Amino acid sequence: MNCEILSVGTELLLGNTINTDAASLSDMLAGLGINVFWHSVVGDNPGRLAESVAIARSRADLIITTGGLGPTYDDLTKTVLAESFGLPLVLHQEEVAGLKCWFSTHDRPFTENNLQQAYLPEGCTVFHNDWGTAPGCAFEKDGVRVIMLPGPPSECLPMFRHCAVPYLKTLSEETIVSHQIRVFGMGESAVEARLRDKMEKMRNPTLATYAKQGDVMLRVTAKAPSHEEAEAMCQPVIQAVKAELGQVVYGVDVESLEALVLSLMTERSLTLSAAESLTGGLIGAKFTALPGASAVFRGGAVTYCDECKAAMLHIDPALIAAHGAVSYETAEAMAKGVRAATGSDLAVSATGLAGPDGDGVNPVGTVFVGLATAERVWVRKLHLGAGRDRVRLLAANNAYDMLRRYLTGLPVLMEKG
Amino acid sequence: MNCEILSVGTELLLGNTINTDAASLSDMLAGLGINVFWHSVVGDNPGRLAESVAIARSRADLIITTGGLGPTYDDLTKTVLAESFGLPLVLHQEEVAGLKCWFSTHDRPFTENNLQQAYLPEGCTVFHNDWGTAPGCAFEKDGVRVIMLPGPPSECLPMFRHCAVPYLKTLSEETIVSHQIRVFGMGESAVEARLRDKMEKMRNPTLATYAKQGDVMLRVTAKAPSHEEAEAMCQPVIQAVKAELGQVVYGVDVESLEALVLSLMTERSLTLSAAESLTGGLIGAKFTALPGASAVFRGGAVTYCDECKAAMLHIDPALIAAHGAVSYETAEAMAKGVRAATGSDLAVSATGLAGPDGDGVNPVGTVFVGLATAERVWVRKLHLGAGRDRVRLLAANNAYDMLRRYLTGLPVLMEKG
Repeated sequence: MNCEILSVGTELLLGNTINTDAASLSDMLAGLGINVFWHSVVGDNPGRLAESVAIARSRADLIITTGGLGPTYDDLTKTVLAESFGLPLVLHQEEVAGLKCWFSTHDRPFTENNLQQAYLPEGCTVFHNDWGTAPGCAFEKDGVRVIMLPGPPSECLPMFRHCAVPYLKTLSEETIVSHQIRVFGMGESAVEARLRDKMEKMRNPTLATYAKQGDVMLRVTAKAPSHEEAEAMCQPVIQAVKAELGQVVYGVDVESLEALVLSLMTERSLTLSAAESLTGGLIGAKFTALPGASAVFRGGAVTYCDECKAAMLHIDPALIAAHGAVSYETAEAMAKGVRAATGSDLAVSATGLAGPDGDGVNPVGTVFVGLATAERVWVRKLHLGAGRDRVRLLAANNAYDMLRRYLTGLPVLMEKG
Repeated sequence: MNCEILSVGTELLLGNTINTDAASLSDMLAGLGINVFWHSVVGDNPGRLAESVAIARSRADLIITTGGLGPTYDDLTKTVLAESFGLPLVLHQEEVAGLKCWFSTHDRPFTENNLQQAYLPEGCTVFHNDWGTAPGCAFEKDGVRVIMLPGPPSECLPMFRHCAVPYLKTLSEETIVSHQIRVFGMGESAVEARLRDKMEKMRNPTLATYAKQGDVMLRVTAKAPSHEEAEAMCQPVIQAVKAELGQVVYGVDVESLEALVLSLMTERSLTLSAAESLTGGLIGAKFTALPGASAVFRGGAVTYCDECKAAMLHIDPALIAAHGAVSYETAEAMAKGVRAATGSDLAVSATGLAGPDGDGVNPVGTVFVGLATAERVWVRKLHLGAGRDRVRLLAANNAYDMLRRYLTGLPVLMEKG
């Protein structure tokens, strides 16, 4: 099945909104074994939208639209699609009831223009929107499947997962199962070099690598008549990848390193703190972005200046004078200091040079990341190269990687680097 | 001039990379008065790329391609575009010399496949790439202009600014000048309501609003025979918007609230610290993401738990017991405490409920943001609604807004909210 994602919205063409929907949907469609061959974006203009629909119909088996399903005059997607496919729009009474209920529970007056959202192509499968007001839908005409989803990612993505994925699965006699193997501490090209022979020979299941922000993901996808069979085909591949790559595999189907650490620490009722220099609060900010972080994260110190390291973490200024702020010893003292100050079970620290300026001693990208427990302290020395944002992100991810290694009984320091 | 941005790369269709180039270029093209009517994405496949080029030629006056200019076998953009437009690719000797120089200064061996990058359509304007290896170019054929740029944003965007913008300006007898007016503390719909009459009447200059992450941007664009005339046409509009919206306008052509605060504080040699609860490090992380932050930011405390507020900021536990962690009094004590602990000139604080869970007293989205100077403390009480990421971002932005108001002599507290 060859798919086109057609996003509708002038805000995308003005550069006001980045089309993250197209990327997120493509990622999930790849997991379903559906080829996405085209993304297109067109504005809230009926003529140009109709032309883009005609192009999509001529080349794709599946068209997924995002955006333009709301109640205002520039929400044109349903009208134009229905006209292009020669289907009348009909009022869906159960969606009218759902809309009235939404407005009443949200204490907002129901205005007549909102009824527009309950008009959907005749004979379609309705996707009720539990995350907003505009329903989506799916229909088939002349051998082309169309799925319409709202534009806001907070509605588009859960509706894809909960409504479109089950619908797409009914279309195939085969079941597709897909798993994500997450890797930290080995680059994409090194992962590929280690697995290339294996990947090239595989047809079903398939194995592919993807570079993510600060780590690497491998996707295993199997097709089989039943879920159980597809699942059984994936498992040996996952085991083989783990055996080949070893400790750099941090999880299967986990969201991120920090989410894994949060769940491991929550399970064991352990608490965490962080002492941050070059990351400036990023370690804490990433962790506390996760719901449920407050049960684990006690707090931290952002000690950007040396005096702060002394005042907030009781680090002897003589230690910094002797070894430098960017040193094994300072990272160790920061982790110990913040653990004592917050009374947490575990503590991490990061000090280094994010650039663009260096300190005249260490090259830009030199970073020391520490982990303190009640018993001991580990420090990783890293050479992270250039790029301020990248260096800061990798420093934070190394702190989470040391935590996950400690929490899963692996050596905290990597064999190299 | 109607433009299509055609992005080439299978990684975009796999959802592995988000197409930020299309958004960034669209934003800059809007500033040049060029209408972007279509974005398309196609993979590294010569047949589908040629089809997409044919569609773009049939509807756009200007086609801007991104990606596919590199040295590997899947870098097809130039070959397919040249063939589509019937232009031969010719070797550009000055680009060969440039490439050899790049490899020698980067201490990497020059391999023959890199020569591919120096082949460009006959008669094109060459855009030398000072940010990577693959040159871009521009040409005109049969009334259609084509601009080809590399894919990585770190090369695509500076090449657009430094090479494509001057090229595009030579095409027009008119000069376009565009300015961005930045607003914090008033929503996009409120801004629009205040300016709608003015905006609807305007033809040249034009005025348009855009919702940005956590604030609002207005763009003023004027066309005139000379830069001076266009500039002179923009200025009265900027002044009128400032007069209408008042203190919520925080700057013209500034990057962000925190970048403005950094420059104001750098100018006056003032230092900053932050005490963060619900933001968990985000205030510090955003500020220290800016190069040059180390001259201003001394550090901070992330006091997610109440005991940390006592231990790190010396806040009397009785104060928290009496008023609660989410209170005017706690925000005040946090700002004072971190200012004392770090010895900074100014200090900000944030405490509140990011959700999804509440505290049983305050609704989710209740946030107190503080600002302490040597003389006094201000606290803003905010009701920021739902959405954990949004609440945390707005809390951080309110801290920067209080700083910029203090630093520019405005009342620190807003009239309402």
